[in-house]
Amino acid sequence: MLSPISWKENTVRILRQTKLPDQEIWVDIESIEQLAEAIRILDVRGAPAIGVAAAFGIAMVAHKHATSDKQELITIAEQASKLLASTRPTAVNLFWALDRMEKKLNEVRDQDASMIRSALLKEAQAIQEQDIQACLDIGKYGAELLPEAGNVLTHCNAGALATGGYGTALGVIRSAIEQGKDIRVLANETRPLLQGARLTTWELQKDDIPVTLVCDNASGALMRQGKIQACVVGADRIAANGDVVNKIGTYTVAVCARRHGIPFYVAAPTSTIDISLSSGEEIPIEQRAGAEITHPRGVCIAPDGTQTINQAFDLTPATLISAIVTERGVAKHPDMPNQLLEFCRIET
Amino acid sequence: MLSPISWKENTVRILRQTKLPDQEIWVDIESIEQLAEAIRILDVRGAPAIGVAAAFGIAMVAHKHATSDKQELITIAEQASKLLASTRPTAVNLFWALDRMEKKLNEVRDQDASMIRSALLKEAQAIQEQDIQACLDIGKYGAELLPEAGNVLTHCNAGALATGGYGTALGVIRSAIEQGKDIRVLANETRPLLQGARLTTWELQKDDIPVTLVCDNASGALMRQGKIQACVVGADRIAANGDVVNKIGTYTVAVCARRHGIPFYVAAPTSTIDISLSSGEEIPIEQRAGAEITHPRGVCIAPDGTQTINQAFDLTPATLISAIVTERGVAKHPDMPNQLLEFCRIET
Repeated sequence: MLSPISWKENTVRILRQTKLPDQEIWVDIESIEQLAEAIRILDVRGAPAIGVAAAFGIAMVAHKHATSDKQELITIAEQASKLLASTRPTAVNLFWALDRMEKKLNEVRDQDASMIRSALLKEAQAIQEQDIQACLDIGKYGAELLPEAGNVLTHCNAGALATGGYGTALGVIRSAIEQGKDIRVLANETRPLLQGARLTTWELQKDDIPVTLVCDNASGALMRQGKIQACVVGADRIAANGDVVNKIGTYTVAVCARRHGIPFYVAAPTSTIDISLSSGEEIPIEQRAGAEITHPRGVCIAPDGTQTINQAFDLTPATLISAIVTERGVAKHPDMPNQLLEFCRIET
Repeated sequence: MLSPISWKENTVRILRQTKLPDQEIWVDIESIEQLAEAIRILDVRGAPAIGVAAAFGIAMVAHKHATSDKQELITIAEQASKLLASTRPTAVNLFWALDRMEKKLNEVRDQDASMIRSALLKEAQAIQEQDIQACLDIGKYGAELLPEAGNVLTHCNAGALATGGYGTALGVIRSAIEQGKDIRVLANETRPLLQGARLTTWELQKDDIPVTLVCDNASGALMRQGKIQACVVGADRIAANGDVVNKIGTYTVAVCARRHGIPFYVAAPTSTIDISLSSGEEIPIEQRAGAEITHPRGVCIAPDGTQTINQAFDLTPATLISAIVTERGVAKHPDMPNQLLEFCRIET
């Protein structure tokens, strides 16, 4: 199974996603600063994958720091956590994973340094394994929702590359195809950083899943022409009421889907649900550099000094979402908030 | 006034729009094949501009062909017309302009060759002058519709570059600003060929009109956030019922605008109205090469062999259009079809 992150001899091995699809470059991350930068520039991206990478990052600093002084080790881990928490504000999985690592650290803080190291690594590995299992379960639940045959639109990349492995939205599609459903993926290219064009096509083609690349602005027209039977996307953070923040452009797809009566599904592990926020309006939306818009893949497409608005995410209100698919079941209206709360309360 | 097309010593001078914004290259078109290619590759683009260029093209072949044999001249002009008509199927202004040139040719076919040449050139010049005047009048009518202050979203480039000069959608904005309205343009970048990023920003900046470039997929989010007060776009062909075919992505904008109660205006000269078609469903939609999606500005963004759907235009049903602004007035519901018919019947 393709996984963009793995543990290798005290380093975090990651696939440099900014280099795809031209080059498949794996790099062994040796320092927390290097990992923070990889997250900032989106070499590691996708809410669940960021969480997994951050967890391994905490394990890595603990392993790299050759001290037997427990307190020093704890301080180093806490500083690393603070740095990672500052990289990207929107996906809650980052903070969720760092919280889990901190709790583990507190649990074992009275043990010796090597035990602390080993406990942190085990916790990071558990986070990844549970994320992969969550994706498989999301796939199983979500596949039921897809039609026997048809085109399914997805936006951005919520695939193996965005998770521990298998994927959330693309996990649903993988699972439906494994069940024998006749699905073709329509992949929105997903400007500005083109995760759909670069990543979704790449990982689906590796699995021989039929995929057609389309420009983001064509969603409405394709729906009007009857060329889309369902939409499935991932999420960066889900509020308690079912509002979803995901890659910019998700809301536009949801609005068009509603107009055409096409089901719009969100697939995400419960680690993406932020039960502390009553509405999506409270979710911080990351603003990124305008150069991402004016210089796709480094090529200038606008006059020098052109102003831009580059918000990396948008909010899709729960009312536009047909169902939220988690590893613990499917939340639907009118009980969506209660179901989400229930899913979050189940102990792992 | 910026005009992308002019007559110069028996050639058609055009601004090579595929080279903008990096380079401002003007080229003197010397043959009808060269003009056909310029239209096909979108060096000349925008429905009204294609019409103007085609008219000058007919005048050019007549001037380039040094014969005193009237019949030969007529045959050459007719062949040129056939070639130009084959370049792009959607914008009706091309066929409208070629029809006008053919009618003029028939009017003067009994005169001598030099009279025919001069009549054709005069007709082409009239088409351009009338197009510019139409844009100015569209601007005047349309400016009334825009708010005193706010952000106006436009898609693609329906500006000076897309017309004889001044622009349709951007003419409305220019006129509103000339009236003292406090308008900022939000320009959709307009994938795949990025006419918004490359052309709309470029021509508005030349006129010091405030413009912010956004990705196409952000329209919905920006509307939800209250950042868009009106939308104005051009058109490639308008059916008798008010259905509009325009650049791919227009429909998605219109759907989002409707959801948010934001007015959605179409600005186009009556030469864009195809009164012979009862509905937009009859308008042919050009399919273009997938490389436009997979290789923006020549840079590969998707794995080799990735399938695409690249329809250059989409249909926005009349029901989603708040008003169609022409040089002869504004057509609104519930009388839109009658008003459009009326506008088309007015003799020039």
